[in-house]
Amino acid sequence: MKKKILLGYNFDRAGFKVLEENFELIYPEKQYFQKEELLHLIADADVLVPNFGYRTDKEIIDCGKNLKLIANFGVGYDNIDAEYAASKGIAVTNTPNSVLEPTAELCFALILATARRIGFYNSALRTQEGLRWGLYNNLGTSLYGKTLGIFGMGRIGQAVARRAIAFGMNVIYNNRRPLDASIESRYNAKFVDFESLLQLSDVISINAPATSETFHLFGSNAFSKMKSNALLVNVARGSLVDEKALIEALQEGRIGGAGLDVFENEPKISPELFDLENVILTPHAGTKTVESRLEMQHEVVGNILGFFAGKQISRVN
Amino acid sequence: MKKKILLGYNFDRAGFKVLEENFELIYPEKQYFQKEELLHLIADADVLVPNFGYRTDKEIIDCGKNLKLIANFGVGYDNIDAEYAASKGIAVTNTPNSVLEPTAELCFALILATARRIGFYNSALRTQEGLRWGLYNNLGTSLYGKTLGIFGMGRIGQAVARRAIAFGMNVIYNNRRPLDASIESRYNAKFVDFESLLQLSDVISINAPATSETFHLFGSNAFSKMKSNALLVNVARGSLVDEKALIEALQEGRIGGAGLDVFENEPKISPELFDLENVILTPHAGTKTVESRLEMQHEVVGNILGFFAGKQISRVN
Repeated sequence: MKKKILLGYNFDRAGFKVLEENFELIYPEKQYFQKEELLHLIADADVLVPNFGYRTDKEIIDCGKNLKLIANFGVGYDNIDAEYAASKGIAVTNTPNSVLEPTAELCFALILATARRIGFYNSALRTQEGLRWGLYNNLGTSLYGKTLGIFGMGRIGQAVARRAIAFGMNVIYNNRRPLDASIESRYNAKFVDFESLLQLSDVISINAPATSETFHLFGSNAFSKMKSNALLVNVARGSLVDEKALIEALQEGRIGGAGLDVFENEPKISPELFDLENVILTPHAGTKTVESRLEMQHEVVGNILGFFAGKQISRVN
Repeated sequence: MKKKILLGYNFDRAGFKVLEENFELIYPEKQYFQKEELLHLIADADVLVPNFGYRTDKEIIDCGKNLKLIANFGVGYDNIDAEYAASKGIAVTNTPNSVLEPTAELCFALILATARRIGFYNSALRTQEGLRWGLYNNLGTSLYGKTLGIFGMGRIGQAVARRAIAFGMNVIYNNRRPLDASIESRYNAKFVDFESLLQLSDVISINAPATSETFHLFGSNAFSKMKSNALLVNVARGSLVDEKALIEALQEGRIGGAGLDVFENEPKISPELFDLENVILTPHAGTKTVESRLEMQHEVVGNILGFFAGKQISRVN
């Protein structure tokens, strides 16, 4: 009998077709399985590719009597209780390779769009009133020569740093621990403590995972320490930023602007952000490209096949 | 008696203050001098810093009986009949250094915004209807591994290339003549003919000056040779693109999208562009930053002082 893969989300079938030879694939008819449905279906599944709308928690994991692998579609796995899964001998994998470049790309797109006011220009030019074109009207900020502070200098943070040096920016970073000197010198990047990152950066980029330690790390206290024209860009997870405090800081001009791809209550965005023209909003689009979606499915397939073949995979627990 | 500098545009006075010691500066009261006013005032001016709204043509130059220098605020000097000025022994200077990095920065901002649909997302999320967030909705395109074709591989084109390689793009270019092998190898850039540039590029960036040879070079014939999902980005001059043909190509899906900072009849933008969500529009903002404006004025000052001191300056004619 074929092993069963339960797909929590209605993933593109072509991307997982290659699995059908050795596995039975169970897809939702709608966009995703409601949690109640999933709790029944997971009873005899060997593999779960989880949904994002609710957490793969103890309750779900306990129902997975045959569950051997939770293969996440994405690099951030805060949607899974990976520690509890480990305690029951269930592996959790993620997709760090396929998300790396597209996420760094979007991160830098937001850095540029925020500094150079791309969203504001693009919207204002399309209004009836238009926009004043004069030399000194509606000026943005150059990035060249400025300091980028990267919070979370993992692989994505480093891929952002690589781009930043081509833009003539200085790179500082804060991380759980300093990187090897060889990596630091590649990006001419300097380790600083969190407080210094806030104080010295012209642009702060959040590239760290959502954990209990990073929850609301960027709140009113942090914003009060940032430069008054500093820009904040978040392509990591909404929970790292206190969205209410950010809105206040932006409304009161305590920071210069924000580029936000992730939010505390996705897909809901605090409506106050819609009224701020120094804010760029994107819909969790770090990997929202044709190429990324295919490559991520390819990486999930590799993790599933590799797991059962006893090969090296992107296991996180 | 002090030499006279006629300022065609109402430039920021602080930026030119340093000139007041040795020159008399004549500013317009409004944003700029009308051509009729300028024709009178230029009679005894030694230096003209021209306006952009009309061309500094034979008529204006002929009225400048004392004119020795036309010091342009900007790198593109298609607003000046530089050849005619030269024939009368009048120097024309521009500001290639101060515009270099900010223009390349905006160019790449438009490349990213177009590929990753930043303008569309930012606008759509703020509408009542919102945007569908699902995994396969509203996908953009990754730049990583794609081919950037640079038309005009001068200093700005090269500064764009430097950024492109940090984004994992392949760079090809077309130019009046191939660059030195040492420069090509720095950007891993390959010279191709214009036809190949059109056919091979996933993104085309226009970084060449407006001349009679480049007028409407990007027209319906060019668009018919481009890939159907190719993106066109123009931060150079509107005249290189046949705006009407571009609109048709975009409406009919013959190319994938466009990022436009310059237009044929600035500050007017063809209204058909407003209806296209695969287009990003910015208001000739290559140097529209606080830092660039100051640095450009600084470079103009250097050209004026240097000209009368017999020093090396950015002379173009």
